Amino acid sequence: KVLRNGRQPPSELMLRCTILDSEGVVKTISGQFKKPDLCIEHRLNPRDLRKIDSRIPNLVPTILARKEAILVNVLHIRALVKADAVILFDTYGSPDTRLQSMFLYHLEHNLKTKGGLPYEFRALESILVSVLSALEAEMVFLRNLIGGLLAELEDDIDRDKFKRLLHYSRRLGAFQNRAKLVQESIEEVLEQDEDLAAMYLSDKKAEKARAMNDHEELEVLLESFAKQVEEIVNEAETISGNVQSTQEIVELILDANRNALLALDLKVSIGTMGIGIGALAAGLFGMNLTSHLEEVPYAFASISAAALLVSTIVTWGGLRRLAKIRKVALSTNGSRNKSRPWISLPLRRRGPESE
Amino acid sequence: KVLRNGRQPPSELMLRCTILDSEGVVKTISGQFKKPDLCIEHRLNPRDLRKIDSRIPNLVPTILARKEAILVNVLHIRALVKADAVILFDTYGSPDTRLQSMFLYHLEHNLKTKGGLPYEFRALESILVSVLSALEAEMVFLRNLIGGLLAELEDDIDRDKFKRLLHYSRRLGAFQNRAKLVQESIEEVLEQDEDLAAMYLSDKKAEKARAMNDHEELEVLLESFAKQVEEIVNEAETISGNVQSTQEIVELILDANRNALLALDLKVSIGTMGIGIGALAAGLFGMNLTSHLEEVPYAFASISAAALLVSTIVTWGGLRRLAKIRKVALSTNGSRNKSRPWISLPLRRRGPESE
Amino acid sequence: KVLRNGRQPPSELMLRCTILDSEGVVKTISGQFKKPDLCIEHRLNPRDLRKIDSRIPNLVPTILARKEAILVNVLHIRALVKADAVILFDTYGSPDTRLQSMFLYHLEHNLKTKGGLPYEFRALESILVSVLSALEAEMVFLRNLIGGLLAELEDDIDRDKFKRLLHYSRRLGAFQNRAKLVQESIEEVLEQDEDLAAMYLSDKKAEKARAMNDHEELEVLLESFAKQVEEIVNEAETISGNVQSTQEIVELILDANRNALLALDLKVSIGTMGIGIGALAAGLFGMNLTSHLEEVPYAFASISAAALLVSTIVTWGGLRRLAKIRKVALSTNGSRNKSRPWISLPLRRRGPESE
Amino acid sequence: KVLRNGRQPPSELMLRCTILDSEGVVKTISGQFKKPDLCIEHRLNPRDLRKIDSRIPNLVPTILARKEAILVNVLHIRALVKADAVILFDTYGSPDTRLQSMFLYHLEHNLKTKGGLPYEFRALESILVSVLSALEAEMVFLRNLIGGLLAELEDDIDRDKFKRLLHYSRRLGAFQNRAKLVQESIEEVLEQDEDLAAMYLSDKKAEKARAMNDHEELEVLLESFAKQVEEIVNEAETISGNVQSTQEIVELILDANRNALLALDLKVSIGTMGIGIGALAAGLFGMNLTSHLEEVPYAFASISAAALLVSTIVTWGGLRRLAKIRKVALSTNGSRNKSRPWISLPLRRRGPESE
Amino acid sequence: KVLRNGRQPPSELMLRCTILDSEGVVKTISGQFKKPDLCIEHRLNPRDLRKIDSRIPNLVPTILARKEAILVNVLHIRALVKADAVILFDTYGSPDTRLQSMFLYHLEHNLKTKGGLPYEFRALESILVSVLSALEAEMVFLRNLIGGLLAELEDDIDRDKFKRLLHYSRRLGAFQNRAKLVQESIEEVLEQDEDLAAMYLSDKKAEKARAMNDHEELEVLLESFAKQVEEIVNEAETISGNVQSTQEIVELILDANRNALLALDLKVSIGTMGIGIGALAAGLFGMNLTSHLEEVPYAFASISAAALLVSTIVTWGGLRRLAKIRKVALSTNGSRNKSRPWISLPLRRRGPESE
Repeated sequence: KVLRNGRQPPSELMLRCTILDSEGVVKTISGQFKKPDLCIEHRLNPRDLRKIDSRIPNLVPTILARKEAILVNVLHIRALVKADAVILFDTYGSPDTRLQSMFLYHLEHNLKTKGGLPYEFRALESILVSVLSALEAEMVFLRNLIGGLLAELEDDIDRDKFKRLLHYSRRLGAFQNRAKLVQESIEEVLEQDEDLAAMYLSDKKAEKARAMNDHEELEVLLESFAKQVEEIVNEAETISGNVQSTQEIVELILDANRNALLALDLKVSIGTMGIGIGALAAGLFGMNLTSHLEEVPYAFASISAAALLVSTIVTWGGLRRLAKIRKVALSTNGSRNKSRPWISLPLRRRGPESE
Repeated sequence: KVLRNGRQPPSELMLRCTILDSEGVVKTISGQFKKPDLCIEHRLNPRDLRKIDSRIPNLVPTILARKEAILVNVLHIRALVKADAVILFDTYGSPDTRLQSMFLYHLEHNLKTKGGLPYEFRALESILVSVLSALEAEMVFLRNLIGGLLAELEDDIDRDKFKRLLHYSRRLGAFQNRAKLVQESIEEVLEQDEDLAAMYLSDKKAEKARAMNDHEELEVLLESFAKQVEEIVNEAETISGNVQSTQEIVELILDANRNALLALDLKVSIGTMGIGIGALAAGLFGMNLTSHLEEVPYAFASISAAALLVSTIVTWGGLRRLAKIRKVALSTNGSRNKSRPWISLPLRRRGPESE
Repeated sequence: KVLRNGRQPPSELMLRCTILDSEGVVKTISGQFKKPDLCIEHRLNPRDLRKIDSRIPNLVPTILARKEAILVNVLHIRALVKADAVILFDTYGSPDTRLQSMFLYHLEHNLKTKGGLPYEFRALESILVSVLSALEAEMVFLRNLIGGLLAELEDDIDRDKFKRLLHYSRRLGAFQNRAKLVQESIEEVLEQDEDLAAMYLSDKKAEKARAMNDHEELEVLLESFAKQVEEIVNEAETISGNVQSTQEIVELILDANRNALLALDLKVSIGTMGIGIGALAAGLFGMNLTSHLEEVPYAFASISAAALLVSTIVTWGGLRRLAKIRKVALSTNGSRNKSRPWISLPLRRRGPESE
Repeated sequence: KVLRNGRQPPSELMLRCTILDSEGVVKTISGQFKKPDLCIEHRLNPRDLRKIDSRIPNLVPTILARKEAILVNVLHIRALVKADAVILFDTYGSPDTRLQSMFLYHLEHNLKTKGGLPYEFRALESILVSVLSALEAEMVFLRNLIGGLLAELEDDIDRDKFKRLLHYSRRLGAFQNRAKLVQESIEEVLEQDEDLAAMYLSDKKAEKARAMNDHEELEVLLESFAKQVEEIVNEAETISGNVQSTQEIVELILDANRNALLALDLKVSIGTMGIGIGALAAGLFGMNLTSHLEEVPYAFASISAAALLVSTIVTWGGLRRLAKIRKVALSTNGSRNKSRPWISLPLRRRGPESE
Repeated sequence: KVLRNGRQPPSELMLRCTILDSEGVVKTISGQFKKPDLCIEHRLNPRDLRKIDSRIPNLVPTILARKEAILVNVLHIRALVKADAVILFDTYGSPDTRLQSMFLYHLEHNLKTKGGLPYEFRALESILVSVLSALEAEMVFLRNLIGGLLAELEDDIDRDKFKRLLHYSRRLGAFQNRAKLVQESIEEVLEQDEDLAAMYLSDKKAEKARAMNDHEELEVLLESFAKQVEEIVNEAETISGNVQSTQEIVELILDANRNALLALDLKVSIGTMGIGIGALAAGLFGMNLTSHLEEVPYAFASISAAALLVSTIVTWGGLRRLAKIRKVALSTNGSRNKSRPWISLPLRRRGPESE
């Protein structure tokens, strides 16, 4: 993939794209263009094309100012915004055509509505609105998914829920990563005065002179989107924090539950041991040996009673011991005093030294 | 929600707000205004209105300087501070009317007290005082809640407490997030000399010339609030650290308790096995087979005694072995030596190389 | 507490303070002063008084340069240093009068020793020396406390030690926080050339002109203290790291111990099952049914032997199986090979593409 | 190793290297050169040679601008790029000759293709392409390895998989470290305008004057590679996050499984205790004592039935108790109310103070 | 310790040091000097002496430029480098005299070799070489120690190894801290142009004028050492990461092992219960009650067979149930589908709003 940069086989030399003209009308739908032609026509560096070649997944999002164009590669959108045209590169295998058609619809409308922002910023606005919709939609989806699972855990802790939690955690992690990268890509642009100035394509084309720092319009536009992406990143972090603290507490609860099970097990074991002692007594008298009690009238009743009594005493003793061990608390007699003043070392002894 | 930016249905075009005039007198209570009218009247960007539209929850707090106004959106307060008026936007569904009325009362009073700070800074001060009260009140509330729970854990560790701990942890996390964002919003203003200068609305209106760096008055005001919010953030972190270390130790205690339960279980099991051996002996002599001891005079007593003896020996042996395993300590004979000097590799061998 | 800023009830209008004159002689001890008077006399902002009002706990430490004074609020010291006087504000409820009297003694002595640093820096030096003593004393105290506990854990791991560990961890956390804030407060001053220059109060009073960057004397003084506080922060972090790694290892040891207990339990259970099989055999022959072996001469001995043999075989088989399961190691046959070279994908296949 | 800097034994004075001339033709293959000669010929500092001496492993990657050369030491490549030659230092013990020959092939080809970038940047490009290939290949390899293991864990959790997970985690950690250092080394160059300017070796040689900030060509080249390395670092972090969350969930699942095993154990124990009670009853009637029921007709049936009934009742009672304990959920009656409004402390009481 | 700064008792007024003259010849060995004399002679601030007083342990390493000297305090070396002399302060209680003598030998040799770097930088070079040797030696030592332990854990996981792991972890943590502080101390110098310029002591003494930014020689020297310390810090972090991941996996393995032990325990318990049921049957027929089967011919065989059959059935049933519970996997039928596309919320419904 990396080595592909320099020279590609012919089949890779084509890119499919949709072009909107200066009136916002779609001129070409998924037309095929040769990469070298695109470079020459839009005065791009061949290296730049990698960023809009949709066959390469997992790209870090970027918004780049070039000589005659803004190169946008954020989430599902790979576009080339010029002063009088917008070129959208097809994202192969994109499963969400609805998102794409929504975006195209909004873009067309926005480009037609002249007045206000210049052409290239209206295109940028539509792109950012679509990116924000996509992020927000996924965030809402994940919030519901995970919120629902955490609510189910309120009712019942079981293994299958953990498995689902793992799958959701991974998705949330991937989403957080993606959202942060989008935020960074916008902020990267905002930090560079040169890039901001270079994005006034209409003025550049009209050869209007601009002061280097005069780009408040664009700054306010980008800042507004950056804040909204930050809100999404923030909420994703809150969800992630909730998942984390739930996991920690669930572990404590499982631990406490295990102790409770062990304690019950112990009770049963103690009972079994008690019974065993009774049975041993009975067994001894069941031996075919002469105990001389064979014919004693109340021997059966009294030995039986004695065996049961021993059983009961042993059981009761064991349970008392268990009760002692089970009492788990954080405080001990000694350490429960109120926190002492924060300094308590004798400083006077150091006095003479300071003289 | 995102797409709403551009064009809204008519029902969303109205905002409810309360207006105080330059004397601090409430002129309008919850009056309805059209968004476009507000933009024109106060020379705002339509995009700015999103920040004060209280129907959008979870906004990142911001304090923004605009041409003729300061736009404040922090926690429960969404306001537009001008040189001679304060416009408070109603927060729908705010459950805490007491907090709101307290704020209004303080604001009115502060605006009436002329002298000292200019009008817009007195308004800002009241807003920040209210925000600080709200943060502090919640922090105190959470501190008591969690402090109480941790104190209860001192007395008794059980599952229900963990569940409450989870709920409190989540709330604390959300609070920490909120407080940090408030702090960041204030510090963001402090870092930008331009924004600070732009906030002297009265001077701007009076067309008084100001040096770019001359904003000590405002800086001291904001820094003072920033420090106080930092104190709250700090305390929340301390609470959070306490929760964390308590969780860790509780887990260790549950683990140690489990080992204690297991050890008792083992004692019972060993006892049961000992009894079982006695019972086996008795059982063998209980078989309907001729052991030739049937009529031996003291056979019953001696076999019984032997069975009980074997029981006792086996039990005692088992308990000794258990005692050996239970002794858990960190030190072993070898590794308990004092820490050796921090360097011990022979360096002399390297000598010739350095020649 | 927050709302108290603006207007206080009369009882809160007074502050108690101790004043030293330009010769280092104590002029007033715990005299009462009205807040407004203090503001006017020392040209302070009313908001500044909050920082030296000792009734407010948990303040973030600050060292602030004001028009005619340096405002110090670090740990137990709240002071106003002027070009010819030092005003110490009483800290109510401070339990450590020894620390305070030590400080006063050092301060008096240092102020009297003329020559070298100017008056205000000698005062600042005494304050920082006292702060450093306090931090160091507490650090030594905590190091001994925690070191002792960790040494005890070397000998014996039990629940009570965990409880103490929790209490010490909390104290250590609070101390680390406090020390870091002190460090930050000093470094904050060092970063601001303006503040450093503004602290040359004697020169300001004498109306000596100073270059903005000429403050090496003060910088060296503050840097030296900053380094020493850094050393303390560093050591506290080391202690905290030790506590952390001890907790982790203790958990592993408890886990391993639990496995050892379980294994012994299993041995006992296996023994019990073996005995049970013997007992079953004996029980069957103890039934009041005709087995036709009743009178066979060596039946008793052979059946007994058979029963005991079966017991032994079953027990031995169980113990062997247990031994297999217990062997816990990290390596498996397959994965124990030495780490392979860090790249092993065939790259030659990619060759043609790079053409 | 460290002391070796100053003076080396003669055998260490030689370096093996491959040289390409200005036409991209290999002039010398693995020729031996004396270190001092290299220093003089290429005007290098003797200290610089350490960075390209391939006998020292684990070097932090660096790209350094020197008077007449660019010194590159990244992963498997140690090279000296000049305005008209490239000197590649042999990496001893490099196991991957394929990677090396691929690199040499690409480099030769790229150097021959004149036009476009200057000679030294074409060499740099080939080096970075090779580094990127190597990183990507390893990342893909690790992703498959770990992805496969995590997929296996989906099917079956066992100990051997954990052992493999440990080995893969370590490799992933080492890879992440390596990739980050490569990224840092590129970004370090990008941050320094001087270094960027100093890398225009051809212009320097031709004594063409250059503006200090005129290095867009090189910046775009390096930035492009930096972004691609960032993508790899990003993906490695995602994999690492997946491993982490899988570990956490696996631990929860093992915990939950243990509780399930314990619960089954308890059922068995309860059953055994129930049986034991029946056996005790039977044992008592099996004693060789006169119970006076010996000849009662239905005594056998009724006592047997009674014993079995007691067994059943005890077992059933125990199982009910177990069922109660097993029910583990996060919610309790009390704490399941919806989250309360985020502030609930009475603020009105504070009212008068704010007056 | 802190208060000692101002005035010391006479016994603390002396420092022992070794002096090398401008030819690299040792003039004085461990001579005693008065602190005030040292201050005056070398134009030092009394506060500076604290940094070279070797009786104070745990100092944060520093390299400081003073008027006529460079003050070095890094690890085992505390030295004062002047334009024509080097003063080494004795480190009391240093256990590693070999390291010290190695250093002295290297220093003497380096000072004698005139040419190349100026006197003071040759001294600095020797100091940094010695520091680097010490760090590297300790790192190699720790790597072997910990590597060996981790390799032992491959073969066998037991408690004693954990205890050793704890001790090694603590040492590694302390080493990491130390190495990072050394790195920071070098980088602190590199960041300050003033300090770098001030270190050209020979030029200062010769009153040669120097440009403020002309210190490439020193920068290259320090940068080279900084990189090498960074390599060590890096490797220590890798080791620490390995320890961490090993701990995590060992915990998982212990958990899995515990589950395996529990499962075997369960098998034994189930077997015991099965035997118990057989024994109960036998016991019932062993009662001294009339079952009317006493003389039935095959009663013994058939009842025995029945008892054993019941035993077997119960055991088999229990084991089947256990097998079901033991199967632990991450996947459930539902959640194992391939990951869905990353966005799946219907966006079309939002369409009209965007109009």
